[in-house]
Amino acid sequence: MLEADFKYIIDTFFTLFTMVLIIFMVPGFAMLEAGLVRTKNVSAVLTINVMIYAVASLAFLLVGYELAFGSWESDTQSIWAVFMFQMAFVGKTVNIMSGGVSERVRIIPLAIFTVVMGAVIYPLVVNVTWGADIIAGTMLDIDMYDLAGSTVIHSTGGWALLAAIMIMGPRKGRYVDGKIRVIPASNIPLVVLGALLLWIGWFGFNGGSVGSISSVENANSVAKTIMNTNTAGLAGAIIAGFIMYFRYKLLDITMILNGALGGLVAVTAGPDLYDMYTPILIGLIGGALVVFAVPIFDKLKLDDPVGALSVHLVNGIWGTLAVGIFVDSVSFMAQLKGVVIVAVFAFSVSFVVLYVINKISRFRAEDDAQVEGMDVNECGVEAYPEFKRAI
Amino acid sequence: MLEADFKYIIDTFFTLFTMVLIIFMVPGFAMLEAGLVRTKNVSAVLTINVMIYAVASLAFLLVGYELAFGSWESDTQSIWAVFMFQMAFVGKTVNIMSGGVSERVRIIPLAIFTVVMGAVIYPLVVNVTWGADIIAGTMLDIDMYDLAGSTVIHSTGGWALLAAIMIMGPRKGRYVDGKIRVIPASNIPLVVLGALLLWIGWFGFNGGSVGSISSVENANSVAKTIMNTNTAGLAGAIIAGFIMYFRYKLLDITMILNGALGGLVAVTAGPDLYDMYTPILIGLIGGALVVFAVPIFDKLKLDDPVGALSVHLVNGIWGTLAVGIFVDSVSFMAQLKGVVIVAVFAFSVSFVVLYVINKISRFRAEDDAQVEGMDVNECGVEAYPEFKRAI
Amino acid sequence: MLEADFKYIIDTFFTLFTMVLIIFMVPGFAMLEAGLVRTKNVSAVLTINVMIYAVASLAFLLVGYELAFGSWESDTQSIWAVFMFQMAFVGKTVNIMSGGVSERVRIIPLAIFTVVMGAVIYPLVVNVTWGADIIAGTMLDIDMYDLAGSTVIHSTGGWALLAAIMIMGPRKGRYVDGKIRVIPASNIPLVVLGALLLWIGWFGFNGGSVGSISSVENANSVAKTIMNTNTAGLAGAIIAGFIMYFRYKLLDITMILNGALGGLVAVTAGPDLYDMYTPILIGLIGGALVVFAVPIFDKLKLDDPVGALSVHLVNGIWGTLAVGIFVDSVSFMAQLKGVVIVAVFAFSVSFVVLYVINKISRFRAEDDAQVEGMDVNECGVEAYPEFKRAI
Repeated sequence: MLEADFKYIIDTFFTLFTMVLIIFMVPGFAMLEAGLVRTKNVSAVLTINVMIYAVASLAFLLVGYELAFGSWESDTQSIWAVFMFQMAFVGKTVNIMSGGVSERVRIIPLAIFTVVMGAVIYPLVVNVTWGADIIAGTMLDIDMYDLAGSTVIHSTGGWALLAAIMIMGPRKGRYVDGKIRVIPASNIPLVVLGALLLWIGWFGFNGGSVGSISSVENANSVAKTIMNTNTAGLAGAIIAGFIMYFRYKLLDITMILNGALGGLVAVTAGPDLYDMYTPILIGLIGGALVVFAVPIFDKLKLDDPVGALSVHLVNGIWGTLAVGIFVDSVSFMAQLKGVVIVAVFAFSVSFVVLYVINKISRFRAEDDAQVEGMDVNECGVEAYPEFKRAI
Repeated sequence: MLEADFKYIIDTFFTLFTMVLIIFMVPGFAMLEAGLVRTKNVSAVLTINVMIYAVASLAFLLVGYELAFGSWESDTQSIWAVFMFQMAFVGKTVNIMSGGVSERVRIIPLAIFTVVMGAVIYPLVVNVTWGADIIAGTMLDIDMYDLAGSTVIHSTGGWALLAAIMIMGPRKGRYVDGKIRVIPASNIPLVVLGALLLWIGWFGFNGGSVGSISSVENANSVAKTIMNTNTAGLAGAIIAGFIMYFRYKLLDITMILNGALGGLVAVTAGPDLYDMYTPILIGLIGGALVVFAVPIFDKLKLDDPVGALSVHLVNGIWGTLAVGIFVDSVSFMAQLKGVVIVAVFAFSVSFVVLYVINKISRFRAEDDAQVEGMDVNECGVEAYPEFKRAI
Repeated sequence: MLEADFKYIIDTFFTLFTMVLIIFMVPGFAMLEAGLVRTKNVSAVLTINVMIYAVASLAFLLVGYELAFGSWESDTQSIWAVFMFQMAFVGKTVNIMSGGVSERVRIIPLAIFTVVMGAVIYPLVVNVTWGADIIAGTMLDIDMYDLAGSTVIHSTGGWALLAAIMIMGPRKGRYVDGKIRVIPASNIPLVVLGALLLWIGWFGFNGGSVGSISSVENANSVAKTIMNTNTAGLAGAIIAGFIMYFRYKLLDITMILNGALGGLVAVTAGPDLYDMYTPILIGLIGGALVVFAVPIFDKLKLDDPVGALSVHLVNGIWGTLAVGIFVDSVSFMAQLKGVVIVAVFAFSVSFVVLYVINKISRFRAEDDAQVEGMDVNECGVEAYPEFKRAI
């Protein structure tokens, strides 16, 4: 057998394996968000998650993939595997955004935004960073290192979320008379299940982003990427737990999991470049950033029921800069420049698109509908119709 | 290393990988059905799902495998991997059937039927289609193309379900005074989790059915199969959402998911043969068929709490015929003939076996037991004992 | 390509694949235990599960791995993949222990114990059995066959649990006036989901323990290991169901699942050595042992809410001895000797460490805290705050 054929077969198989792990993030996000919102909004948030996967993926198949990568060709492994791997990413940016506007966003305008994100916005971001670079060319000249998308995925989604929160405003009843009303998560097992499925999906997200396992060097790189990814998640969980315990003598599991996710986002830009100890530091800082960022966004009345700004935006930025700090061969200024360019592009384009869609079909549900619950008003399906409500 | 050894190793690994994905369908079906039934029947439906996996698999190991394939031999990959892959399929036909008679079926007669299905009925269907063909020989001469079982798995299970519904009748209180009482799903997050696990399992089901990844051609075929499988699911979800929204201005997530599953069933007969756009059409038709078939079966008083007839039987037929419509090299008449032969065989044999078992141990629970709930009467274990019931 | 390179690539990929399956046991244990405890203790048990993964894994990275294996080196596959695979094991011993002291254990002392277990106790057990053997050398001379840890993982965790139960005592209100109060599981779907995720994880646990898939012999061995692992689980589930039905005419799903897990534990010592029928016998005995052991431990007032002693300790011993009984080339006395040495070591070291930690920070929650629930007292987060409690 030709060595090239061997590599083709192994890498196709490997890409399919990591793609499947990423697809576990679809139930991952769905369960996480279904657990974090109130019972009256659970069916809606689940419908949104399934809609995003279906709509973003099909938009990417029909339009976005070619815009991002220029052509349906691949020499080194099956193009169908490559497509599936890239397609598994595309919904994530919308997931990050939609989670943060849960409990007040209407589904139809969000579906329209998902089409634009999957067909145009996300593919353009990919094009100028990972992709064919046919649009920006040498003009933007981004040479940021971002293996699996601390910036390209997480910050992009985070900036879109910030634009969305500014347009939609906070949930009815969240900020009243200058006070912040605490709204507890309704189903903690689902939160834990969802976060752990995301964690597993991250192994595919980052490991698969190495792009090939078919040489000894690449096999080592893939394995190290997965190990370092995991390590940052461990450290993020531990530091969040520590801070909560020293402040409150209580271990808030939702904050511990958001700390873990923060660590995972932060390591995503350069897990293949670090030694085995650096991800501990990156994760510790990432997890701590989440704990401190959550109340700050709340003070700014940026109402984000799932903590997505703290997890994805703050740590997307931190993680991208961290590569410039901890890896000698990577320029901090190149990282910073990439962060800023993507920030400007993703925020401004998302804001304009959201603003225009909002004129056509209002994103924010009426106050009455929010009080009654999105499930009844958007889906006609209660999540737990037989369970008596205590509150 | 010999090329044959390389292929043996890679294909064994690949088969194990796809087998594991299929096993995720065990919690997939379990969670889907646990979410769709009422809280008083949740433990029973879960017990049934675990029982099916255990009983059908062991029956297949002890009797069925040899009946289907003639011998415990394999030259091209490990026979143990081949067995596990085939074993992962066998429970599915019973799952399809048992889901549709939820909330009134008793477990012990169902376990007896599962033995017969896993040891004899399903292996015979496999024998004359995919298997050793030692029984039918050239007499039946089925040359239907059915890569991963639109007919062999889904229609077979669907016909068995139709026979079962005819024998067991509808749930107590479902059709009263000529009216259909709507019985809502009790736990939507479980429904979504289950459907998404099934979706992931489908990648293994269809991708693994290519049988080998160890050549460039096969690697492409596997990847394309997985991509096309996914695409049909996307299209099925989207069309079901569209129809619900245009009819009711509401997005019923259970219908959207059944639309996705309908698309997945429909593409299963020929995902390796289509270009990348045809599965969109197949999935759109498949998803629409589900939406329109559900009320028709209800008018016929064929009470099917999970929509299994619409998802598996209708789309099993549609998907098998679709190969004959969209693929030039496949004869529509051969597909139709295969559908009809399997229909006659699966329905009549299932009916006779169910009828005989029903004489020995009645399938249908007493009306009182149905009203009180199957959990208390069959399992002695309530699913949610601490949660106060609202209805 | 060099054959050695081919093997390196394939085995790295294979180890990563099986590692990912094992990581599914993290949500597996979490969901299983969250479903088995009362709603007032669900957040605490979930926090414990996430804490164990984070703390044990990081302790193993920083200290334990080198203690167990002597060096960070690997010639035949990526050391980072090897580490991740071994790391995926380490939390399991604590999971086994923590599950059995649910509903009264406090999290902080448990976290301290987890550090010691992940950094020292478990690595020492590995060192003298699977590992570098730099400590015990020829003195202990353990030549027990234990492929994937019936003794090394399950008995070790089980002995630690026995020590923990002796130190912490039963839950408040469990044994009153010489009577045993039955405390039902609060969420059966989570129990089923968790058990099935553990089952899938076992394929990686045992299959990956073969250590290589890159020869025809190894590919067969891996596939057979996975098949035999599964078969014992099937048999364990079936026998537990049979016994429950013949005793009570009711099919208790929690006992059926514990029977399956018992079979899986029992087969874990030698799944690669058995023919395809022996695991049926091993699983039948394993499942039956669970059913009979559960009430015995209760009579001894060893309060174990999840049945971990019956599943892991009893079957860890049975499974290790079974290799000596059913495999000609393995000495029964060597197996027995291994079981005894690990028992003495794991129990006595765990007891001493737990005793010392207990002096510093008491493990057992106050009776008041137990009555109010661990969630409020340890986490400040209720698991289901919107659901009205029936009991």
